[in-house]
This record gives sequence, structure tokens and C-alpha cells, in this order.
Amino acid sequence: MFGFNYYTPTKVVFGKNTESKVAELVKEFGGTKLLIHYGGGSVVRSGLLKRVTDTLDAAGISYVMLGGAVPNPHLGLVYEGIDLCKKENVDFILAVGGGSAIDSAKAIGYGVVNEGDVWDFYDYKRKATGCLPLGVILTIAATGSEMSDSSVITKEEGLVKRGYSSNYCRPKFAIMNPELTMTLPDYQTACGCTDIMMHTMERYFTNGGNMEITDALAEGLLRTVKKNALILAEDPNNYDARAEVMWAGSLAHNGITGCGNDGGDWMTHKLEHELGGLYDVAHGAGLAAIWGSWARYVYKDCLPRFKKFALNVMDVRDEGTDEEIALCGIEAMEDFYRTIKMPTNLRELGVNPTEEELVTMAKKCAIGVGGEMGSAKVLNEEAMLAIYRASM
Amino acid sequence: MFGFNYYTPTKVVFGKNTESKVAELVKEFGGTKLLIHYGGGSVVRSGLLKRVTDTLDAAGISYVMLGGAVPNPHLGLVYEGIDLCKKENVDFILAVGGGSAIDSAKAIGYGVVNEGDVWDFYDYKRKATGCLPLGVILTIAATGSEMSDSSVITKEEGLVKRGYSSNYCRPKFAIMNPELTMTLPDYQTACGCTDIMMHTMERYFTNGGNMEITDALAEGLLRTVKKNALILAEDPNNYDARAEVMWAGSLAHNGITGCGNDGGDWMTHKLEHELGGLYDVAHGAGLAAIWGSWARYVYKDCLPRFKKFALNVMDVRDEGTDEEIALCGIEAMEDFYRTIKMPTNLRELGVNPTEEELVTMAKKCAIGVGGEMGSAKVLNEEAMLAIYRASM
Repeated sequence: MFGFNYYTPTKVVFGKNTESKVAELVKEFGGTKLLIHYGGGSVVRSGLLKRVTDTLDAAGISYVMLGGAVPNPHLGLVYEGIDLCKKENVDFILAVGGGSAIDSAKAIGYGVVNEGDVWDFYDYKRKATGCLPLGVILTIAATGSEMSDSSVITKEEGLVKRGYSSNYCRPKFAIMNPELTMTLPDYQTACGCTDIMMHTMERYFTNGGNMEITDALAEGLLRTVKKNALILAEDPNNYDARAEVMWAGSLAHNGITGCGNDGGDWMTHKLEHELGGLYDVAHGAGLAAIWGSWARYVYKDCLPRFKKFALNVMDVRDEGTDEEIALCGIEAMEDFYRTIKMPTNLRELGVNPTEEELVTMAKKCAIGVGGEMGSAKVLNEEAMLAIYRASM
Repeated sequence: MFGFNYYTPTKVVFGKNTESKVAELVKEFGGTKLLIHYGGGSVVRSGLLKRVTDTLDAAGISYVMLGGAVPNPHLGLVYEGIDLCKKENVDFILAVGGGSAIDSAKAIGYGVVNEGDVWDFYDYKRKATGCLPLGVILTIAATGSEMSDSSVITKEEGLVKRGYSSNYCRPKFAIMNPELTMTLPDYQTACGCTDIMMHTMERYFTNGGNMEITDALAEGLLRTVKKNALILAEDPNNYDARAEVMWAGSLAHNGITGCGNDGGDWMTHKLEHELGGLYDVAHGAGLAAIWGSWARYVYKDCLPRFKKFALNVMDVRDEGTDEEIALCGIEAMEDFYRTIKMPTNLRELGVNPTEEELVTMAKKCAIGVGGEMGSAKVLNEEAMLAIYRASM
């Protein structure tokens, strides 16, 4: 196994009605003038935003607001947020929403504290030296951004989707009330469950440094999300299932399911980023559409892990060759996707790229990862193109 | 399930030779004048302390030293450390050792920052409002104090052993090099594994609020420690097994294996604390000596959890009544203790209290928990005495 750093300073406040604690948490972490950053109208329509501002008003905490964060959040809004924060002397960002609002808030936080163009960080040109402190009220269980060190932003020009990670942007607090996720459309709930599982699967399918305890945690998490995603497909207002999935979402991406390994594979995410940049598809659905093709392309090079996944997560019977068991595991995962109405190829995702577009995506993906990347199997541009083609 | 707070801000730096990073970590967290607090001579003899001070010297960080922390660390040394810190204007404590040195360092940290007698906190008279920042170089995998919010101190007068918990004392960083644990005697390694498992078992055997994901993490952790404790009994220099146990030790007590439940049972710990206060036995061995009697006393009131434990952790076959399965799980756990040479009763622990001493321990234990306590089953003084008697 490898050495590792593990750092998850986010204070999680989990349970019913926890959004009522927002003012005391903002004060605990020194916020005096807030940017409240959110996405679409759902947090307005649900009354959540009003409850939050009422609580802040009562506590005498001032704020400015910026809505409009969209899935695959755009750089333009980040620039707007940076300008607003500077103009209003904002010292704390409160993101209210899902991964889009949080990622966008992180990018704004980088831009306020660091000189120059914030896109430089996402373009791998230089590293941030700080980030404005931020807190989160989570309304979608999916990206894990509420505890993670990462954020993903899309530059409108050329539709370039890139991630940047540093400990500076880990939220100071995360308020997590499972009830707030009950208004999500079924499709978004399923996308979230897919994203959550993928964050741990990216860390699981590696050829280096795996630890038994990390595997045990990862497999336990995957089994839990799988079971509860199926419950939510039938009973979306099931509080316990919402809670299991929501907490799993944070643990899937805060680092704990990757301790000791080589950092993970992450190629399904990278392949999906190009899709998401080009087509603005839901991230979770994009991951589901790509994963099977990726898995079939790489599994022979990571056979012990695919076998273990099949046996310990997908409940495949221990019969046949390792390859047969591994393939059964991949099929079982795709069956699970279908059951929760996730796509297992690009057609089901609703996109139909031309061969030229596939070539472009593969080229951009390869550039984005510096030529080649992967741990289950190292993929170059040619391999990426093959996976895109297979996912049609 | 219940709502919960989860807060583990400790930066973990895990792996070979990580102690070489001590100076940069101290600087990162603002330490300029250190108290280096350690236990017995083992960190001196092993050369670890010299390596640490050489690194600090090279970085220009000044320090004073205080050794002598013993298992069940004493209040007298805590007072000594507080005086030394105040006299020398110490602004950061570096604990080098196991749970004794860390717990003692936490108590010193409380005493420096808060006015009045530090014992007040352990005596439940008032609450701390802060703690001097501290970092840890861990040499024993056991108590989990390197990430936890708790510390346990023994007052020499009357041999009163008490714990106090608050987020203020969570270490800023924890340097964890599994190689540093290889010099431990086999008995101490086994005691550590017992303590680690008990921290999660105390959270697992409850009647309220359990979450599936928490159970999955807990069971995975318990299986991992059980397996690797057996490996270490045969092959104490096995790096991977040392690493599995060391990381499990932190996760077992940082809160993650209790999220969503009612806080846990903790009566085995409370019963052992009286033993530890009176006889100065190794904490892990004391826990093993008490657990079986506790489990047999309470299991019928917490049958679903004992059954689940038997099936998912102890690999008991799913045959017979729930009670039979639960009892098989308890027996399997005791067999495991015997295999790693842990005691399963007080005689094997090497102590032989009189009936009067048992009565005194039960009385002190009841006072310590405010009359009665427990989640698997609520225990009063009479019940505590019955368990002590059964453990003879």
C-alpha cells in the first residue's frame, strides 16, 4: 500500500431541520458578509432560501445573493461572483444547492483570494494559494463536493470542462438535511446515486496500493447506495433511504474510500467530462452511459479488482473463471443502472455524436489528462476513442 | 436514525518515514514553541525522539520536553505539564507516543487555556472553552486519541479514572508511520487491537438510530482488525497488517462508525475504567476481560444487533434461533481474544478483587455515569455489580 494524506475538516451537521443552524455555523467560522450562491429556482420555490435568509436576518448577518449556477457550472457566472464578492467585501460564501452551486462557489472563492484569472487553476497553469471560506446547505446528494477538495467548471468558449483540487476549498461546514433532497425528480436522484457510486468505484478499480480496510469501507458504501437507490426508485420520500444516500455521497468523495491506494483510476470521470462539456448532460447519467464500455475495455488488466467487485458488491456467485465472474459483475452493474433508469450507452443518454465529434472528444480528453491516464489500465487517446465508439 | 454531527479536522499523514514531516506540520498549524510530551523510554531508546528533535532543531523550532506519561495517565503529570507550558510560553503540544501521551497532552492543553483546576472537566463540573493546539506522532495503534475528541485521565487520589470529550482537543495533525508500532510487545499489540475493535463495538451495540452505511463501515472495520490482529500475532513485523490496524484505530474512534445512532453503549469502557483506575491494568486487556460478561448480561435486550454481529463480523452460520446465533457470536469473539492471548475474565487478566472491591467498583462506576447508562441495555449499579461478579 501507499502512504496517504487524509484531511476532511468539514463540520457536518446532519439531520432534519439542520438548516436552522446556518447562522450559528457561519458565525463559528467567522463569516460576517456572505455571498449566498445558489442554482435554479428550486431553492426559491421550496422556500428553503427564504428560511435561510430569515435565519441570517435574525442573526444580523448581511449577505448578497447570486443565483443561476447550472449543471456543469459556467465560468462566466464564476467571474460575476468574484466581481460581486470583491465589490461587496464578502468574507464567506454560502452555497445553497447541489454540486453545481458548491463547485461554482469554490471557484468564486479561489478567484476572490488569488490574483489573476481563476481559470488558470482549472487549466493547470498555476496553483491557488487560498480560497475564501465557504459553507454549504446541501440539497442534492451526488457530487460529494460538500466535503471534497475538488470542483469542476466549464469554460463556455470551446466547452472545456476541467476540475481543480486543493484542500483550500474544502467547505468549513456542510448542513445536510435528507428531507431537502425529497423534491428532486427521480431522474436526478438516480443520477446522484450513480455519481456517488462512481466516486468510490474510481478509487476502487486500481492496480496499486489497495488496503483491506479501504476496500471494506468502499464495498460497504457501494452496497448501501445500491440498495437504497432501488428503494428511492419506488419510494422517493423514504427518509432513511435519503439519509443513507446523502451521507454516502459525502463519504464517497471525501477521500476515505481511497486511502492507501495509488489515487484511483478516474478515467470514467474524465471521459464523461468531455461529454458534459459538449452536451450539457447530467453528470451521473453521463457516467452511467460511459462506465460499461470503459469497464469492458479495461477489466482484463485489473481482474482481481473486478472479480472482488462482482462478488462483494454485485452479489455475483463465485462460479466460473475470474473473467466470467468479472463480466457478470459488469453486467450486474449495468442491470442496476437500467433498473434505476440510468443509460448504459450514449444513445440511451440521448446524444448521438458524429465520428468527428468522438475524435474531438478523445483528443480533448487526452489533452486534459496530459496525454494518458488510468490505474485499472492506462488509456491513451486511441483507447479513449475506442471507449467512446463502444459506448455509442 | 438520529441526526448527528461529524467533525474530524485532524490532518492525517500516513506512511513510512512520515515523522520527517513534523516540522512542516507544526509550522502549518502555527506552532512556534513546543512542549514535546511522551511516555516511557521506548521513544528514546528507538531513536524516534532524537529524530524528531533533530528535525525541529533544523527547522529552528524551539521546544521543552516532558516525559513520563504512563498507561492510565496521571493527573499529577498533567499539572506538571500545565505549569511547564505556562512558564515557557508554549503555544503547541507535540505528543509522541500512544494514547497515554496524547490523552495527557490533551489534558495539559485544556489546563493551559482554561482557568482553574483542569480536573473539573473530567469531574463533570464545568466545560472547557478551548485547548492548546496539539499534534501527534503515533507509536501505538489503540486508543484512537490521535483523531478523537476524547481523553481519559486518572486522579491518583482515590484512583478515579474519568474521560472528557470536546472538539477543542482534536489534534491538528497525526503522523502515523506503521513501522513505529513494530517494536511493541505482542501483548500490547493485542491490547491495541482489542481497544480498536471495542471503540467500534461500543458504537455498534445500540438500540437506537442505526444506519445501514454506518453498520457496513463498522462491520468492515471489525473484520479487518480481527483478520490483521491474527496476522500480527504470528508476524509482528508485517507492514501491511500494521498499517491496516493503525488506520482502523483512528477510524474506530473518530466518530465515523457511530454516525446516526444514539451515541453508543460504552458500558464496557465504563466498567473497565474502574478496573483500570484500581489496578493499572492495560486498557485493552481490561476491556477483553469484561466484554464477555457484559455481552451475556445484555444480549437478549439487543438481539438484532448481536445476531448481525455474529453473522457479519464473526462469520457465525445462520442456523438456529436468534439467541443461539447471538451466543455463538459472543463465544467466537471470546475465542478470538484467547487466540491473540487476551483475557476473557478478571482471573486471566491477573487481578482478583474481593467482593468488597467489586461492590466499590460498581458504586464508583454508577456514580461516574450519573446513576445508570447503556444503550444495548441500561445498567444500574446492581447490574454493574452482577457483570463484575460474572467476570471473576
